Amino acid sequence: MGKLLIVGTVAFDAIETPFGKTDKILGGAATFIGLAASQFDVESAIVSIVGDDMPQEYLRLLSDKDIDLTGLEIVKGGKTFFWSGKYHNDLNSRDTLVTELNTLADFDPKVPEDFKEADVVMLGNLHPNIQLSVINQMQKRPMCIILDTMNFWMDNTLAELKKVIKKVDILTINDAEARQLTHEYSLVKAAQKIQDMGPRFVVIKKGEHGALLFHKDYIFFAPALPLEEVFDPTGAGDTFAGGFAGYLAATENMSFNNLKNAVIQGSNLASFCVERFGTERMQDLERDEINKRLHQFKALTQFDIELQ
Amino acid sequence: MGKLLIVGTVAFDAIETPFGKTDKILGGAATFIGLAASQFDVESAIVSIVGDDMPQEYLRLLSDKDIDLTGLEIVKGGKTFFWSGKYHNDLNSRDTLVTELNTLADFDPKVPEDFKEADVVMLGNLHPNIQLSVINQMQKRPMCIILDTMNFWMDNTLAELKKVIKKVDILTINDAEARQLTHEYSLVKAAQKIQDMGPRFVVIKKGEHGALLFHKDYIFFAPALPLEEVFDPTGAGDTFAGGFAGYLAATENMSFNNLKNAVIQGSNLASFCVERFGTERMQDLERDEINKRLHQFKALTQFDIELQ
Repeated sequence: MGKLLIVGTVAFDAIETPFGKTDKILGGAATFIGLAASQFDVESAIVSIVGDDMPQEYLRLLSDKDIDLTGLEIVKGGKTFFWSGKYHNDLNSRDTLVTELNTLADFDPKVPEDFKEADVVMLGNLHPNIQLSVINQMQKRPMCIILDTMNFWMDNTLAELKKVIKKVDILTINDAEARQLTHEYSLVKAAQKIQDMGPRFVVIKKGEHGALLFHKDYIFFAPALPLEEVFDPTGAGDTFAGGFAGYLAATENMSFNNLKNAVIQGSNLASFCVERFGTERMQDLERDEINKRLHQFKALTQFDIELQ
Repeated sequence: MGKLLIVGTVAFDAIETPFGKTDKILGGAATFIGLAASQFDVESAIVSIVGDDMPQEYLRLLSDKDIDLTGLEIVKGGKTFFWSGKYHNDLNSRDTLVTELNTLADFDPKVPEDFKEADVVMLGNLHPNIQLSVINQMQKRPMCIILDTMNFWMDNTLAELKKVIKKVDILTINDAEARQLTHEYSLVKAAQKIQDMGPRFVVIKKGEHGALLFHKDYIFFAPALPLEEVFDPTGAGDTFAGGFAGYLAATENMSFNNLKNAVIQGSNLASFCVERFGTERMQDLERDEINKRLHQFKALTQFDIELQ
């Protein structure tokens, strides 16, 4: 059982999809990452910041999964980061309606003592300087540092972002962002350029079109499970990252074969996340549902062709 | 060794991509299908129509692959079907610049006697009435009739198209067209609706995002091989269909497992097609290049996770 340190937002989301809309519900990258990772045999902790408007019952959702919250700063009189978005009819694109940084504006992350020697560090989407601060607080080089980021940081803090990219083992990024970061349309070439920037492994997320894992000349592809209904895509990418990181922390093995499995585990968990609003589906997801769907993933992709 | 009957255009294409442009070169659905299918142990024939402006050397490219051309009508003084298109920078979309039906406008297909008992009939993209005429000329129910079509026929001849769909075993169609045909956004639901319309199997092609095979509750997914360069996507869908149909005709086995392999073979061949303009890459593609890339397909998708 490895230790997993998660850095990212714990937030309020208000979501509108063609199927309905929510009030402010629990969201945030670290939330989705933590819930997904808790499906594996890991000790995990979240480093984040919220205001005291964050209901205790939401935090209990996390602590009930044995996620250590000593690194979660609660600012008295402060307001929690809030994001609101509206998905288009195809659910593949969305408009951001509101982004209120609130307490996140002055976030100075503090890694709990117990997690300064974590095996896996999962840096969820945040300002690169916050991500860098967390890396610098580690007392031992982790087995693996995973970085998630987005186009916003490329547009506004590229120099800082590149410093972080240099220090991580794995970058997870979506296809449009990989192209933006490298000015390469081919994802194969983009992944090569990103490896030249530092990370040994690159995971390119393509949403409903699956995810690609790159390492040197090796490429592995995991599809997204074709679903009858996608209800709300919010958090799917973070759930993928959480499953991926949680599996690596639990197995403590950085072979390409094990990373392939981590990609499958992440894709599998993400396929549940989108079935309900926000974190709803992930809150009481059971191990045997997960195992059953892993069998579906295997059936979906495995073939037995005679090779010469 | 099974018999494969191919119906579709033999045409001139003029193509412009970000990498260059061509004069009128050999193109057409039946051409790409025939070249791809010729990689397998099949006896194949093309039913089509051209004008006598079609150079003998182009037709020899097909007959040299042992493709029977008795069903290829050459209209004296007639002009061959001509398509011209320009791809956008991402190669995922294109504008049609010219479509000249020419001899195709009065095409009355004649199935050669030797192929009226073909095992597999591959109906390439053409007017549904032509496709129907071919089906009606068969003297024995083929093991398998495969239909390819496009949105143009849905827009203009939907009633006729539905008649053809009712009579085939497999429909191959792209994702946008599957959605248009069924008014379902979910491809899982779309494939179910299409199966209700007649075909036992549905293949949904997603271009660079791979292809899905559906049959009852079974789903199989084959990715497109991630390539460093895509040079010209023209004919990739037909090459996929040709590899798929050729493999089925060669193996004469309609099990879901064998159809999975057919999808892989089709995807594999399509990955070569896009590496050069038009049919160039397919003309002298060698068996060991194909086998080598099949190994890459296996490495790309196969994993060995412990399932419970």
